[in-house]
Amino acid sequence: MSSTYGETLKLSIFGQSHGTAIGMTLDGIPAGLPVDMEVLQEFLNRRAPGQHDYSTPRKEEDRPEFLSGIVNGYTCGAPLAAIIRNTNTHSRDYSNLIETPRPGHADYTAQIKYAGYQDVSGGGHFSGRLTAPLCIAGGLCKQWLEKSGIRIGAHIAVAANVADDPLFLDPVNPNLTLIQTDFPVLNPEAGKRMRDAIAKARLDGDSVGGIIECVITGLPAGIGEPMFGGMESRIAQIVYGIPAVKGIDFGSGFSSAYMLGSQNNDAFTCIDGQIRTKTNHCGGILGGITNGMPLIFSAAIKPTPSISKEQTTINMNTLQEQSLRIKGRHDPCIVPRAVPVVEAAAAIAIYDAILSQTSRR
Amino acid sequence: MSSTYGETLKLSIFGQSHGTAIGMTLDGIPAGLPVDMEVLQEFLNRRAPGQHDYSTPRKEEDRPEFLSGIVNGYTCGAPLAAIIRNTNTHSRDYSNLIETPRPGHADYTAQIKYAGYQDVSGGGHFSGRLTAPLCIAGGLCKQWLEKSGIRIGAHIAVAANVADDPLFLDPVNPNLTLIQTDFPVLNPEAGKRMRDAIAKARLDGDSVGGIIECVITGLPAGIGEPMFGGMESRIAQIVYGIPAVKGIDFGSGFSSAYMLGSQNNDAFTCIDGQIRTKTNHCGGILGGITNGMPLIFSAAIKPTPSISKEQTTINMNTLQEQSLRIKGRHDPCIVPRAVPVVEAAAAIAIYDAILSQTSRR
Amino acid sequence: MSSTYGETLKLSIFGQSHGTAIGMTLDGIPAGLPVDMEVLQEFLNRRAPGQHDYSTPRKEEDRPEFLSGIVNGYTCGAPLAAIIRNTNTHSRDYSNLIETPRPGHADYTAQIKYAGYQDVSGGGHFSGRLTAPLCIAGGLCKQWLEKSGIRIGAHIAVAANVADDPLFLDPVNPNLTLIQTDFPVLNPEAGKRMRDAIAKARLDGDSVGGIIECVITGLPAGIGEPMFGGMESRIAQIVYGIPAVKGIDFGSGFSSAYMLGSQNNDAFTCIDGQIRTKTNHCGGILGGITNGMPLIFSAAIKPTPSISKEQTTINMNTLQEQSLRIKGRHDPCIVPRAVPVVEAAAAIAIYDAILSQTSRR
Amino acid sequence: MSSTYGETLKLSIFGQSHGTAIGMTLDGIPAGLPVDMEVLQEFLNRRAPGQHDYSTPRKEEDRPEFLSGIVNGYTCGAPLAAIIRNTNTHSRDYSNLIETPRPGHADYTAQIKYAGYQDVSGGGHFSGRLTAPLCIAGGLCKQWLEKSGIRIGAHIAVAANVADDPLFLDPVNPNLTLIQTDFPVLNPEAGKRMRDAIAKARLDGDSVGGIIECVITGLPAGIGEPMFGGMESRIAQIVYGIPAVKGIDFGSGFSSAYMLGSQNNDAFTCIDGQIRTKTNHCGGILGGITNGMPLIFSAAIKPTPSISKEQTTINMNTLQEQSLRIKGRHDPCIVPRAVPVVEAAAAIAIYDAILSQTSRR
Repeated sequence: MSSTYGETLKLSIFGQSHGTAIGMTLDGIPAGLPVDMEVLQEFLNRRAPGQHDYSTPRKEEDRPEFLSGIVNGYTCGAPLAAIIRNTNTHSRDYSNLIETPRPGHADYTAQIKYAGYQDVSGGGHFSGRLTAPLCIAGGLCKQWLEKSGIRIGAHIAVAANVADDPLFLDPVNPNLTLIQTDFPVLNPEAGKRMRDAIAKARLDGDSVGGIIECVITGLPAGIGEPMFGGMESRIAQIVYGIPAVKGIDFGSGFSSAYMLGSQNNDAFTCIDGQIRTKTNHCGGILGGITNGMPLIFSAAIKPTPSISKEQTTINMNTLQEQSLRIKGRHDPCIVPRAVPVVEAAAAIAIYDAILSQTSRR
Repeated sequence: MSSTYGETLKLSIFGQSHGTAIGMTLDGIPAGLPVDMEVLQEFLNRRAPGQHDYSTPRKEEDRPEFLSGIVNGYTCGAPLAAIIRNTNTHSRDYSNLIETPRPGHADYTAQIKYAGYQDVSGGGHFSGRLTAPLCIAGGLCKQWLEKSGIRIGAHIAVAANVADDPLFLDPVNPNLTLIQTDFPVLNPEAGKRMRDAIAKARLDGDSVGGIIECVITGLPAGIGEPMFGGMESRIAQIVYGIPAVKGIDFGSGFSSAYMLGSQNNDAFTCIDGQIRTKTNHCGGILGGITNGMPLIFSAAIKPTPSISKEQTTINMNTLQEQSLRIKGRHDPCIVPRAVPVVEAAAAIAIYDAILSQTSRR
Repeated sequence: MSSTYGETLKLSIFGQSHGTAIGMTLDGIPAGLPVDMEVLQEFLNRRAPGQHDYSTPRKEEDRPEFLSGIVNGYTCGAPLAAIIRNTNTHSRDYSNLIETPRPGHADYTAQIKYAGYQDVSGGGHFSGRLTAPLCIAGGLCKQWLEKSGIRIGAHIAVAANVADDPLFLDPVNPNLTLIQTDFPVLNPEAGKRMRDAIAKARLDGDSVGGIIECVITGLPAGIGEPMFGGMESRIAQIVYGIPAVKGIDFGSGFSSAYMLGSQNNDAFTCIDGQIRTKTNHCGGILGGITNGMPLIFSAAIKPTPSISKEQTTINMNTLQEQSLRIKGRHDPCIVPRAVPVVEAAAAIAIYDAILSQTSRR
Repeated sequence: MSSTYGETLKLSIFGQSHGTAIGMTLDGIPAGLPVDMEVLQEFLNRRAPGQHDYSTPRKEEDRPEFLSGIVNGYTCGAPLAAIIRNTNTHSRDYSNLIETPRPGHADYTAQIKYAGYQDVSGGGHFSGRLTAPLCIAGGLCKQWLEKSGIRIGAHIAVAANVADDPLFLDPVNPNLTLIQTDFPVLNPEAGKRMRDAIAKARLDGDSVGGIIECVITGLPAGIGEPMFGGMESRIAQIVYGIPAVKGIDFGSGFSSAYMLGSQNNDAFTCIDGQIRTKTNHCGGILGGITNGMPLIFSAAIKPTPSISKEQTTINMNTLQEQSLRIKGRHDPCIVPRAVPVVEAAAAIAIYDAILSQTSRR
């Protein structure tokens, strides 16, 4: 476990926010898959910092260098490895955090766990920056899934207390083309109000959270395994690897807890000779296994813990409370940048499940 | 993956609802741990069917036979294995489900995945009955955790649209003694209304869902690993292995998505020489690692899919819609019986994380 | 690790020699595979004790009871579980071994590792009896491999200093039909001399070891993965799980260390439109991956450590040397009974590699 | 599996011989371990090519760049990653090997497995060059083990049909200081004859193999797990990941197959208050678990398959036999350079077993 994920795929992520480089290795990829570097870079650009008014002004190119696994544009069967060098780091911003851990951050737990040996600069290995190599692996898996007609999209369902239109308006045929834009919302008006609220939080030195809804279409029925190898378990394990995620549910999820069985059960029907369901409360998963309907899940993102407002922390030497003002460059809302990260995590989990499934026949 | 779980522990669960026996093996347990069979049986009795008016009348003793791993009341270092024989099975109840899959069940996905070879009786390996061996493993881990002062409790936070008092009234010092009863609620009045609503659903041939809130106290800080080995990932993977779970969140979870950073961040303080937080929105986990506060999570349970009300399904041979009435014995609400199962899952995940953590120092 | 094995398959073996039962669970098996119980029992009978003059007189039926995973004679996709109850146990034979560990046995290392909590009776979890569940799993895999034309056979290459004819007389087309008998040797005369030497060792209260050579034919080229997932790594890991194995080599193995490259390299040729090699020094494996030739390996079995001759041990309380005479029933040579165990181990490793390989295309 | 190894440690190796870079990630390392880069470089220099008359003249610095996991000379708890850039590559040497696979190499099996997408240059991911990152990981583990008094050494037991003095002259107190030199042999006279024989093979355009004997001293008793987690299984799995290894045995290994039990059993005794054995035929391992004696194993290395002598191969397009002369730069004997690689593999396996063992108490 730790920084590795996967059953047939073996993803390993390494690096610290202000270290030499961050990167990933990905073993278990079949040979002969084409790699479109341009499409990958476009995907990575959606996550890259410094591009929007709602994100940190830290500038990073996030341009991966592939070290292995690709020959003449195709995977060669050997493990893929890619790195991104860290160029624009301001380590001095973090020097005081060893003594006074930031509320809501891993500073304190890392200090306890690693007894002071952890890399404290920029959050070290706990930094959101580590989602960049996750997006390298996920961006590739997404490409390969699309070749089989499996598409992944996500939108900002909620940000700063503003709700987008629910995807559940049509959970049977969700419109993915709408939601793969820069600030992905279904309802532009809601999007504008979100941006305004995020801008206000920034001015207040505060931050906001949100919910990302992700949908995967084109999945065949039969993917996933019983019990702990179900699609919910696989996706939840990797999505919780994204910093700031504090909740995940599938289909109607927490709402289904308030329904009657007669409301929540999805009646079967037949459309164009295919067995389908009339509703999709189960989010495309029954018994952990895909049923051929769109797979839908939502991830709750807590508000960015780094805020410039004054907060109360403890001085770990004196054990006295102390007020803290965090300097440095931070996103007032990471939800927009987290959208491609959630897509990437989903792509990895699903591609791994498909490769593992293939082995069961 | 599939029916195995764990990093240092290796839990393997087997059996089908109406097969010869169900059971589990548990490898990786240290030698020399005492096993209190009476305490284990009391724990299993909380999950056993046929004991309450809200559960299926199917009677099963759920009395495990241990085959290995225990000598003179102590673990001997070899893998533990335990089985429960299936005695009270009515396989004929399920014969028609091969052709007409039950909405909300794994009948359809199992048929696609296993091409008709799956054990269809009683849901086979997808049955809720498989949570009994999960409770054997989890009941043991719970015993062993308690010896280190780590206690696990859960209550019915919501059932049939009725909410119990929130545990978050005091997330810093939750009262576990209150909530380890038969129908575990904090507010007896709410409990009565839940039971009434469940009884009504039963009369209607319908079912209801709910939310289980689980809390673990006494955990030291520093348990869990970065990224995919964080406590959220570990707990989510196993909790989603419980049939009918469709959502899980930690601490304020989905609610934190609607908060400001200044509200959601938990300020540090010092109590009796220990570093603590004043609130517990993070649910005791920062960066995937425990911070010494109570670990809190909630699991959403969908309404039991087996209802006696008429439903629409598809005939898999003719591809025509067909109405379906499910016979057999079913719980109108599995939430009360799922409470110890959630505790068991949490106990396994936490004990595994602790054993794995020990190896990192 | 420990008592679990496999990448796509998850084999878990449990039980102690004189405990309630021994058994195995096997997860990851595709659905729809036929199970021939008679063929399995014949295979298990080859390993069962009490059948030959060279084996222990302990009588065990070794008749497995399947608890799950099989419906109407076919695998159903759920984990298989099978147990064998221990019926004929003489625990008192072993009572003194806590204080005075037997040379060559795991008594001492288990005592150190498990601090006295280990099951000392009959060797507990370290007993050769645990190879019975290994043979259940392996016997099934062997059946399934044979349906794809992949056959596994082994012979006693050496026992009691007597060598059988080398399989390398024709490593390209080894004759498997010859070597699947009770006391499997290619040269009956050598077999007779082996039996005589074993009988002599028994009379002397001593024991002898030997070498088992195993061959797998019909394997397609391309099975196995680079580096640590190569066929040698996979087979060695499981074969070393058989008690008393102290060496394993592939193809010419240790002999190839004494050859020139020009002798050891296997020249390619074409036979009936298939690419083959003229010799088979590599034992059918290049770069960890099968090349379509017979896969050949040899396992060295040390002489049974349980001998009735007087030996020197230590009293763990007084730390004084002490003479020891082991009572009880023991095989003077376990090599013949180990032959099907080696076949079983090979079958599991190969079937797992094939299932994992399928997932790479 | 594949290019990943480890239970508590997670080692992942990537790269191709003539690709951009080779490297490794190593997750699961405790925080706070010192890293001595100079000692590591000295260790890597023992494996580096171009330094001796018996090795390929290809010049590579083999100087790793660490990208993560180390802060101020200590491990920080995050995964370690290190790379070595490939600078001195002659890809054109290998262009014809796609059609005419080299006997004894993975060219043919890679072609079948990866359907022509594999990286053919220099053997790609199958190259011996991939042992460099193995030595980075192993060199670090060796450092850390030495801090606990655990020392690892190896010598050339056999090369080119010349045998060194056996380590078994004193398997109880082997002299490690003697054998950690450039061309590590116990008997200088034997070493000279080995070099002469290697030089002769080079002149003949041929190659020779050999046997490496490795010993680990200072190991406490109780390391390793039963069955498939035993020390033999752990070490064999990783040692077979070294290209050209075709055999491994422990203690007396294959020789013990020819002994009587009364000869092979190691009598217990007490030396300086410690329980020890008088002989060490078991190679320090009983029941898969260390017994406190030196752990000893031998690995058989086949002769380098790349020879300049004319050989017979097949043209994969025409299926006609064809003669082949391999150009390029190759070691006439890789045994000397493989010595530190075997030490590295042992160090990783043992350090992983110790970290995993710690979790069992």
